[in-house]
Amino acid sequence: MAAGGRMADRSGDINMQVYDAPLRDMRFVLNELHADDGFGDIPALSEFTPDLTDAILEEAARFCRDVLLPINRSGDEEGCHLENGVVRTPAGFPEAYKQFAEGGWTALASDPEWGGQGLPEAVNKLVEEMICSSNLSFGLYPGLTHGATTAIEGHGSDALKQAYLPKMVSGQWSGTMCLTEPHCGTDLGLLRSRAVPQGDGSYKVTGSKIFISAGEHDLTENIIHLVLARLPDAPKGVKGISLFLVPKYLPREDGTPGQSNGVACAAIEHKMGLKASATCQMNFDDSIGWIVGEPGKGMAAMFTMMNTERVSVGIQGLGVGEAAYQAAAWYAKDRIQGRALSGPKYPDQAADPIIVHPDVRRMLMTMRAYNEGCRALSAWVSRALDAEKHSPEPEVRQRASDFIALMTPVVKALFTDLAFDSANLAVQCYGGHGYIRESGVEQYARDARITMIYEGTNGVQALDLVGRKLGAHMGRYLRSFFHPVSAFIEENNVDGPMKPMIEALAKAFGALQLSTATVAQRALKDPEEAGAASADYLRLMGLVAMGYCFAKATKIAGLQLFFGSEDKRFYDAKIKTATFFFERILPQATASFLAIKAGKKSLMALEDDVF
Amino acid sequence: MAAGGRMADRSGDINMQVYDAPLRDMRFVLNELHADDGFGDIPALSEFTPDLTDAILEEAARFCRDVLLPINRSGDEEGCHLENGVVRTPAGFPEAYKQFAEGGWTALASDPEWGGQGLPEAVNKLVEEMICSSNLSFGLYPGLTHGATTAIEGHGSDALKQAYLPKMVSGQWSGTMCLTEPHCGTDLGLLRSRAVPQGDGSYKVTGSKIFISAGEHDLTENIIHLVLARLPDAPKGVKGISLFLVPKYLPREDGTPGQSNGVACAAIEHKMGLKASATCQMNFDDSIGWIVGEPGKGMAAMFTMMNTERVSVGIQGLGVGEAAYQAAAWYAKDRIQGRALSGPKYPDQAADPIIVHPDVRRMLMTMRAYNEGCRALSAWVSRALDAEKHSPEPEVRQRASDFIALMTPVVKALFTDLAFDSANLAVQCYGGHGYIRESGVEQYARDARITMIYEGTNGVQALDLVGRKLGAHMGRYLRSFFHPVSAFIEENNVDGPMKPMIEALAKAFGALQLSTATVAQRALKDPEEAGAASADYLRLMGLVAMGYCFAKATKIAGLQLFFGSEDKRFYDAKIKTATFFFERILPQATASFLAIKAGKKSLMALEDDVF
Repeated sequence: MAAGGRMADRSGDINMQVYDAPLRDMRFVLNELHADDGFGDIPALSEFTPDLTDAILEEAARFCRDVLLPINRSGDEEGCHLENGVVRTPAGFPEAYKQFAEGGWTALASDPEWGGQGLPEAVNKLVEEMICSSNLSFGLYPGLTHGATTAIEGHGSDALKQAYLPKMVSGQWSGTMCLTEPHCGTDLGLLRSRAVPQGDGSYKVTGSKIFISAGEHDLTENIIHLVLARLPDAPKGVKGISLFLVPKYLPREDGTPGQSNGVACAAIEHKMGLKASATCQMNFDDSIGWIVGEPGKGMAAMFTMMNTERVSVGIQGLGVGEAAYQAAAWYAKDRIQGRALSGPKYPDQAADPIIVHPDVRRMLMTMRAYNEGCRALSAWVSRALDAEKHSPEPEVRQRASDFIALMTPVVKALFTDLAFDSANLAVQCYGGHGYIRESGVEQYARDARITMIYEGTNGVQALDLVGRKLGAHMGRYLRSFFHPVSAFIEENNVDGPMKPMIEALAKAFGALQLSTATVAQRALKDPEEAGAASADYLRLMGLVAMGYCFAKATKIAGLQLFFGSEDKRFYDAKIKTATFFFERILPQATASFLAIKAGKKSLMALEDDVF
Repeated sequence: MAAGGRMADRSGDINMQVYDAPLRDMRFVLNELHADDGFGDIPALSEFTPDLTDAILEEAARFCRDVLLPINRSGDEEGCHLENGVVRTPAGFPEAYKQFAEGGWTALASDPEWGGQGLPEAVNKLVEEMICSSNLSFGLYPGLTHGATTAIEGHGSDALKQAYLPKMVSGQWSGTMCLTEPHCGTDLGLLRSRAVPQGDGSYKVTGSKIFISAGEHDLTENIIHLVLARLPDAPKGVKGISLFLVPKYLPREDGTPGQSNGVACAAIEHKMGLKASATCQMNFDDSIGWIVGEPGKGMAAMFTMMNTERVSVGIQGLGVGEAAYQAAAWYAKDRIQGRALSGPKYPDQAADPIIVHPDVRRMLMTMRAYNEGCRALSAWVSRALDAEKHSPEPEVRQRASDFIALMTPVVKALFTDLAFDSANLAVQCYGGHGYIRESGVEQYARDARITMIYEGTNGVQALDLVGRKLGAHMGRYLRSFFHPVSAFIEENNVDGPMKPMIEALAKAFGALQLSTATVAQRALKDPEEAGAASADYLRLMGLVAMGYCFAKATKIAGLQLFFGSEDKRFYDAKIKTATFFFERILPQATASFLAIKAGKKSLMALEDDVF
């Protein structure tokens, strides 16, 4: 595991997934790393003391290990099945979901007004990570429900809130987002689903949607769909899109699910991975629904949900990356094969474990650095989510909101790219055994792969960052990130053991600043220049953000060691992982910088029909 | 397709794999690019004129498209099945194999003495690429047979050659390599299978082998296993290993398959991909076999086969990468979604095809550059394979052999790493549709994944390069590559349109030379330094080798355009792709260089039990 070397005992059985939540590192990013993040204290969350959040994290870790992990591989193997319009989730999923809801896990981060526990996002995101480490497919069911409740909370009428939120927060009902249609995904302006007002405040919604996660399943008694559709006289394009709440079963007066509502699952997809999550083709046929928000403002309502989801998808990636790392670390210590290049390190065994090999170390350290770097950055963003919602200071709320806007595409795309790399490094550590399904490790690669695609492909994230976020409010979003980094570098750029690290960070940050100016300038004249730079720019910003977190972590760890902390093992490992990041990962910033500098010309030179 | 924009018509059906061999680029690397490679003319191959090889390539392209491609996705979906000890390959495979053997495709590169056609490797490797583009799983069956015949040819007795080679070359019988055992893969010194001499020149072979590709199947009437095992009094470790030929059925006097030989398939693996290739657990139980080569020299005989196979695995990667590129290019032109950032490019359509987006271009150009770069390098290595075997000049044969020894790990690891990246970029171009199995594109990612692992993981390749190949014969292997690159740079580093490209190549080459010196020096004191640098060193060498090929290609293309070639479209695209490579891909050399420079310290710092 990331931070301590504890490891679930699997008695040498290669064919078993292992995962133990990296609680020590989680506590570090939650309580130590971002204490001075400039968002200040949040009185509304003061009841969530470290003691309390520790207890929650420990309980979540236990639940994930004991309930969700054991059905992860079997769920992948069995998949979902559609029979007579009903989706059957894999064995154990309904029971696990029942336990999950009854344990209050669906309500964790929701507003107490609707029965939620109002947990800080900074804690909730760590729980999300654990859930995704142990069972990504499972995590999607409550994850999407939470996204849907966010949209209803933000844009729905009081009547809708009263009728739906309590049951969704308790996990009794689940939610979906119905955006994509066969001919349109990224470009929702093309969508064709229709909603016709019935004169009584309700609408009849008709259309076909694809790629609907959790569109149909056997975990809850009702499913609440949020559906993008057009009103009869709506203008073309995205301005004509509204959002509708369409339940699978219409609630009766007493709130129990009543008659069925013309919502049908026509098919489920056969996918590369994420097989225990039902991806449905949904048909709405004169289904009764209610508008969420204003007519024509469906995209805004949907984006409330989407932005929340984008951060969560980044966390999904991190979760899978951590599970993959733990699998690889276990295997590298267990598998004996060959001898260390410098001579036998375990002479009493027939061979050394493969962890003695520098190239295996390179893979393990890379995964470890990715996971710790992402977790540190995610904790920073989560702190901002809490500050945005609860800080008493308007200026802090604004700054937090700016930072979230800037970092949402970075978290989504960077984390998922790196998670896929981690999963594949884990497969590589296993060698041939990693390619065999029973080992459970190739599942991580297949599961992680979707996170780079859904909720807006990583290319769309990069364009969002460069095209929308960079220039917004004269660079104000950017300042919410550049200022703390710049201040940290200035403050710490002094002679001492951290000097090489700070210099490397300053160099990468300089490249990011220069790239920002270059891209901004070029994009003014030619928007395609923004697109040409986008993926590399996002990566460069991500590397700088992780580097900043690692440098801060090193400073904190160094002080702890200096003052004789009892947790020497943890802080020492933190510094070593940070050092690895600076020596071996951060140099990739140069390649990104040079690619950005090259501009669009060589990308756009070939005629379309030559491809 | 890579070089011309021809594209199989699939009438807008997303759920269909497309592939058309990139014949124009193949002819370019075969006949134009390496004409001055210093290996000179090879009289023994003079009958293979461009007219003849063109005809062969075209015929192969047709066969691949018409026979192998249509059963690629269905083969993935159906997989292999083991029933009562017999493996059934997917529907269509036995028929396709029959056509393949009858068409003489199994005999293409084999020695005419055994019924082969003696085709130059330079042509054969292009055919291999096509086969792997259209159906990697299928390609493994004849591919492994070819590897096995190479080992028998090189080390077997005359009797064995006479008895087995003609039937294996004709495709009537197939071959396997049986190395891995459950507890040992990379470290074959640990293997336990035993061979007991029977006093009549035969042996009884007993043991369990895993991961045996094509260990059992229904394509041929007999299967010839090459099995690593120990003689009773053999020393421990790799020096005690010998190689044995063990047929599934013992041939009768008349050469037809007779009684069965105690060879049983106990299970087949459930894998991430490559599902139509049967990966078998094989048990040998007092199976009669004959030694191939000297006792205790099994590893040498196996490496004859393994080295051939390693180059072929690189080509497998390239094949899948090309198919993935073609799929992505097709989709990017077909899928309409959103508008170009600079305003509508196809205003008559509801939206623009996604190829207008710079980030989609980035992905397509990356795949294209990877494939063309790998194909160019592969053609150079293939020329060397022909020169090594057939050149009348001993010095040329030696130099060719040195170059092959150096480049084998590079081709294997670089091509397969890049192919996996290409396959995943193709999935990314497809967005959500790419994650759906029916689209056929995620199969490329799953299939390509194994090529980074088998025949020695890519980490093992990197260690082979740095640990064995660099220092061999005082750097002689290295000179076979450094000299031509250095001469080319010197010759072309003049003012003119190619100046920026040559300077970029010179810079990367300088980094490679410096890295070589650094690694050599450090490794003398500490062999773990070689391991710590290995993966990045291999990548750096691969980037330089591709850069050299692209620079040469640019020079040739420039001259063709200057002299008014009628094939302007091809040469123009070649220069644009090369320019993209230099601007957007080669800068990664800097990151590799810095990682190499960092050395082993941060890799090895953490204690084993902290992971």
